[in-house]
Amino acid sequence: MSEKLQVAVAGIGRMGMRHARHFATLTPRAELIAVCSPVQAELDAAKEEFGVRTYLSFDNMLANEKTLQAVVVASSTTVHAEQAIKAIEEGYHVLCEKPLSTSPEISQSVVDAYRSSVKSYPKQKVMCGFSRRFDASYRDAFTRVSNGDIGTPSVFRSQTCDKLDPSGFFVAYAEFSGGIFVDCSIHDIDLALWFFGEDSKVKSVTAVGITAVQPELRKHNDRDNAVGIIEFYGEKTAQLYCSRMMAAGQMDCTEIFGTNGEIAVNTQPQSNLVNLFESTGVRREIPPDYYGRFREAFITEANEFTAACLNNDILPMSLEGAVKAVRIGSALQESLVSGEKIDFDESGNRVEAARL
Amino acid sequence: MSEKLQVAVAGIGRMGMRHARHFATLTPRAELIAVCSPVQAELDAAKEEFGVRTYLSFDNMLANEKTLQAVVVASSTTVHAEQAIKAIEEGYHVLCEKPLSTSPEISQSVVDAYRSSVKSYPKQKVMCGFSRRFDASYRDAFTRVSNGDIGTPSVFRSQTCDKLDPSGFFVAYAEFSGGIFVDCSIHDIDLALWFFGEDSKVKSVTAVGITAVQPELRKHNDRDNAVGIIEFYGEKTAQLYCSRMMAAGQMDCTEIFGTNGEIAVNTQPQSNLVNLFESTGVRREIPPDYYGRFREAFITEANEFTAACLNNDILPMSLEGAVKAVRIGSALQESLVSGEKIDFDESGNRVEAARL
Amino acid sequence: MSEKLQVAVAGIGRMGMRHARHFATLTPRAELIAVCSPVQAELDAAKEEFGVRTYLSFDNMLANEKTLQAVVVASSTTVHAEQAIKAIEEGYHVLCEKPLSTSPEISQSVVDAYRSSVKSYPKQKVMCGFSRRFDASYRDAFTRVSNGDIGTPSVFRSQTCDKLDPSGFFVAYAEFSGGIFVDCSIHDIDLALWFFGEDSKVKSVTAVGITAVQPELRKHNDRDNAVGIIEFYGEKTAQLYCSRMMAAGQMDCTEIFGTNGEIAVNTQPQSNLVNLFESTGVRREIPPDYYGRFREAFITEANEFTAACLNNDILPMSLEGAVKAVRIGSALQESLVSGEKIDFDESGNRVEAARL
Amino acid sequence: MSEKLQVAVAGIGRMGMRHARHFATLTPRAELIAVCSPVQAELDAAKEEFGVRTYLSFDNMLANEKTLQAVVVASSTTVHAEQAIKAIEEGYHVLCEKPLSTSPEISQSVVDAYRSSVKSYPKQKVMCGFSRRFDASYRDAFTRVSNGDIGTPSVFRSQTCDKLDPSGFFVAYAEFSGGIFVDCSIHDIDLALWFFGEDSKVKSVTAVGITAVQPELRKHNDRDNAVGIIEFYGEKTAQLYCSRMMAAGQMDCTEIFGTNGEIAVNTQPQSNLVNLFESTGVRREIPPDYYGRFREAFITEANEFTAACLNNDILPMSLEGAVKAVRIGSALQESLVSGEKIDFDESGNRVEAARL
Repeated sequence: MSEKLQVAVAGIGRMGMRHARHFATLTPRAELIAVCSPVQAELDAAKEEFGVRTYLSFDNMLANEKTLQAVVVASSTTVHAEQAIKAIEEGYHVLCEKPLSTSPEISQSVVDAYRSSVKSYPKQKVMCGFSRRFDASYRDAFTRVSNGDIGTPSVFRSQTCDKLDPSGFFVAYAEFSGGIFVDCSIHDIDLALWFFGEDSKVKSVTAVGITAVQPELRKHNDRDNAVGIIEFYGEKTAQLYCSRMMAAGQMDCTEIFGTNGEIAVNTQPQSNLVNLFESTGVRREIPPDYYGRFREAFITEANEFTAACLNNDILPMSLEGAVKAVRIGSALQESLVSGEKIDFDESGNRVEAARL
Repeated sequence: MSEKLQVAVAGIGRMGMRHARHFATLTPRAELIAVCSPVQAELDAAKEEFGVRTYLSFDNMLANEKTLQAVVVASSTTVHAEQAIKAIEEGYHVLCEKPLSTSPEISQSVVDAYRSSVKSYPKQKVMCGFSRRFDASYRDAFTRVSNGDIGTPSVFRSQTCDKLDPSGFFVAYAEFSGGIFVDCSIHDIDLALWFFGEDSKVKSVTAVGITAVQPELRKHNDRDNAVGIIEFYGEKTAQLYCSRMMAAGQMDCTEIFGTNGEIAVNTQPQSNLVNLFESTGVRREIPPDYYGRFREAFITEANEFTAACLNNDILPMSLEGAVKAVRIGSALQESLVSGEKIDFDESGNRVEAARL
Repeated sequence: MSEKLQVAVAGIGRMGMRHARHFATLTPRAELIAVCSPVQAELDAAKEEFGVRTYLSFDNMLANEKTLQAVVVASSTTVHAEQAIKAIEEGYHVLCEKPLSTSPEISQSVVDAYRSSVKSYPKQKVMCGFSRRFDASYRDAFTRVSNGDIGTPSVFRSQTCDKLDPSGFFVAYAEFSGGIFVDCSIHDIDLALWFFGEDSKVKSVTAVGITAVQPELRKHNDRDNAVGIIEFYGEKTAQLYCSRMMAAGQMDCTEIFGTNGEIAVNTQPQSNLVNLFESTGVRREIPPDYYGRFREAFITEANEFTAACLNNDILPMSLEGAVKAVRIGSALQESLVSGEKIDFDESGNRVEAARL
Repeated sequence: MSEKLQVAVAGIGRMGMRHARHFATLTPRAELIAVCSPVQAELDAAKEEFGVRTYLSFDNMLANEKTLQAVVVASSTTVHAEQAIKAIEEGYHVLCEKPLSTSPEISQSVVDAYRSSVKSYPKQKVMCGFSRRFDASYRDAFTRVSNGDIGTPSVFRSQTCDKLDPSGFFVAYAEFSGGIFVDCSIHDIDLALWFFGEDSKVKSVTAVGITAVQPELRKHNDRDNAVGIIEFYGEKTAQLYCSRMMAAGQMDCTEIFGTNGEIAVNTQPQSNLVNLFESTGVRREIPPDYYGRFREAFITEANEFTAACLNNDILPMSLEGAVKAVRIGSALQESLVSGEKIDFDESGNRVEAARL
């Protein structure tokens, strides 16, 4: 067996620890060697679990880990781009949690950094982790669509709906999340681009949102439920729903309607293969959160990213696509707030004058 | 439109009232003209609802209703055969609730009466109402099996499982019901004969039962849960489950496994097309009782029986089959009690000596 | 049993014949006495099946049927309003197929005629037949929502998606249908008003459509797939999808997301309770068309309309609501064509100036 | 992180290679160091994939691998017991594929060897791998049953049904498989003992089998479809179905009916969360084979066995239970062939005389 990819994880909060665990124990070709976090308690927990070197400073980690090959950026969204760019410029492979940034411009700067760096490090891999692309069911759906099984995919409907968290966490979180379309629907937008083609051109976006359970979200220009339409050039359209109000658990599902059939992913959500027959009827549980639904996809992501770095394989998705998804998400969020439909010409420029 | 079939219903307890309602209001070609019952309150209710003539005596009803053409026997099982035979002998069409009798011999006497009577009344129709044969889903399954869609049907699995009735009703009822295999599984046995062919020859039956919730059933040689095997000559076998202990509602489902596929009926029971997403997961309700599951089938039965009488059509099932089902059900019940497997030769005679 | 409601059906094409059949044979308290149609062959078929009097002229039918009490208007949409108004003005009960008209103004004129007529005929009943309101599953959902089971209903998602008809029928039909939002989504809009309350105030509508399979629809300003958003005042929003491109059959489903749970109707469509296990996996069929899905609802509609006429009961829905649904559907269709979002103030007036 | 368990795999045919892969790459705390097989090509493939030492002889492997701690016996069933006993006697931890042997007596000899050996090696772990016990859905079901969620589990129904393999493989395989009840239903029997309690006492077994597709199986006293009943003392019973004739794929499901509810595992089998809407209806695929259904369970098994060896934890199931399952499976197979019901007294002895 070949040598193992030497990996560090930046940011080891809830999601970062999961990435660390996937690389440390469930990615045979990778070796987790270091983690960093500004929180000492998190470092202690990681040291205890993985026996790795720990750093309070991202820069120090890069400076000291001489054998390091790849960095997983799982820190808070506000520093994604900064850390990713630093790692890129030093030639490391980078797996950055989504989104690169809540700002399309900053997201673009990561791509720019990579385009510049890859001239010096031609085998360098940089990926924004859209975990659903690694999910077995979505992949099955994509293969079928690619095979022409449903004809031309024409209408795309997808939702990312989180379980209600009555603690108020989402209100505080909304200040930095970029809003529900950037935070949640970014996945659905990425999927739309995947299924329709990454070169799909947006013709318009419209969004409407409400605050059904957490009116305080409005102070951050956010909503707890929102619906949106992305119109594409070439007879394609996408319909989105995002929510933070689900009672039963994580409800992420996608349907692709083609000229000759439809494929549905997870429209009948479930935790496992158990059904309970009780005096109140038949019941099944569903995953309580995003990780409960997509854990296997994250592990696949870690393994495939590792393989791509070691083998110099082409990554399954482009970094440009991640910027495009942020751009669309931001436009939807803007429409949500302004109440205006936003039109684009075929070059991607806004068509503002049309309404005057 | 042709004249309406003049119908009377004998026995208007819960099920009899339903039959009366089906014929009075949901069978356009029938007219309900009379009912009988030994219970005056039932007669009053029927008179109120249907405006029909009422009789405390079955015999009086037959004697007085000069225009009567068809009798629905929905009285208690113990008088099914007696009333059916009387009506048969006077030339009426008869729709008799299942079973003809809990005794195979008495059931046979109904067939004998009909065989004799039909010589005088060649257009006379007599049917034992196995309602599932009129259910749209079972019919769809049967059509597919008949078309050869699953190859040769080889293994048949079916269950009739009632919701738990904690009132103790079933204990009292068990005294006259013929036991759980005759009362519940009779439907599954009839279906096995339908799907395998009514000329199928039983090679052996075995049954095991338990009293999980109502040990008092044992005093009537009955059980609250039982499983059984019917082995047929010609590489076919059936597996049965009957229960009076279901928590969620009526759980009647059937699977037919063929050499080239399988058809399942109602293995995902449901009341309607509603799913509820709650903090405890996803839930749907299921029908609370047999009628909740099969109401439409009973109405179809009423309409098709009526049409067969008026048009002199061949009935969809033979009266002999009803006797065969009772015979098999009785044998299973006997095996349940004795703990012995019961073998039959190809002529249908018991093979007792084999074990000695 | 009381006397039977004397009913005539105007228009006996495919749907009209079904209504005729429901009233003639499946509505015990109604009697079908006459039908009219400009097509002699249709009259012949109806005479053959029902033995009723037939008329080539609607006016002649009304003039000649002295015992007539109720008229079912099932003619082509273009004459719905005219026939309904004539019948209303003569004091008949009227059940009019949806929509009253594709024009909100003409639809309103039916309401106006009724408001005027009901002064003279205080027991007169006039209903626009939104069949889904009579469907057992939708009613179950509505009862639960009314009971507060899901908290405050906040997001409504619904679709009416027809099986692809490659014959080109829909292109010709589009000339008079009012467009896909008026023809198909009218049901979903009516349901949104039902679940959110008929007094809900629309804040904006937006729609996007494509022609994925039938580009000729554009000459009638129509599309074969469209998505729309209805924003309501008071933190509620609806998301619609309508299509004429489904491969598998009729796909009508609805989800109501509340602050405390969700109810889904028919998100797992099926024809019956049969599942087929084949070499290609597990398969079930789904209804091929609208009637296949909603036949029972139409029959319930016929019976309840009849009962309301005979008993002078309040109808389950207001005629005004039917106009409101047409108004919203027309606005969505307009947005589909213009590409503009349409805003409304709380009085229901358009807010045109806002964008200047 | 602690040191890794040093593991060898004996037998690297299809299933053995999977075990090797699980231990080599998906069990972080284990290290695969050697494999053995009488087939050189298999050794070459393993060397290529894992870089491990290879042996044509099981004995040589044990003799030469000085650091070896645990042996996975995945060779052909006929040598399971022999290899397991050798490894046990030398003090290795052993994970043996099911069944220990098709013979209850030989199976017992493995237990005897372990009981003797464990006196010298008190931390030694020996487990027969019933993979379903490691499946997340079965574990969820077990937890619920243990919590009393369904009251007293009373009726157990389970099936192991393989996809039809038209190659004739199963006919050759039947010579050594022990028959369909020992080969397939052994899993269901193990589950019955798990859910009812490993101390459950069998009162009787009965089985019936047919050859619907492969009559040649009869020459090895086997069948391609069989049904069976296990009656337990204490008001419990199990109903089994095993088949090698499924069209759609692997169909393994289990239902546990309790006095207060039911739990169903995999009664709606599926490969993943994808549904396909096609002109023929709605379709989903199901796993083609046992491994497709239970891959995750095998990986969990490898990890938990490893942890138990390293931590000296108690294994999740007893070796005695594995013998009991073989004993019951053999009795069912005997009943299948003889056509006789087999009764047992409460001490587990056969009651032969009862019938004379």
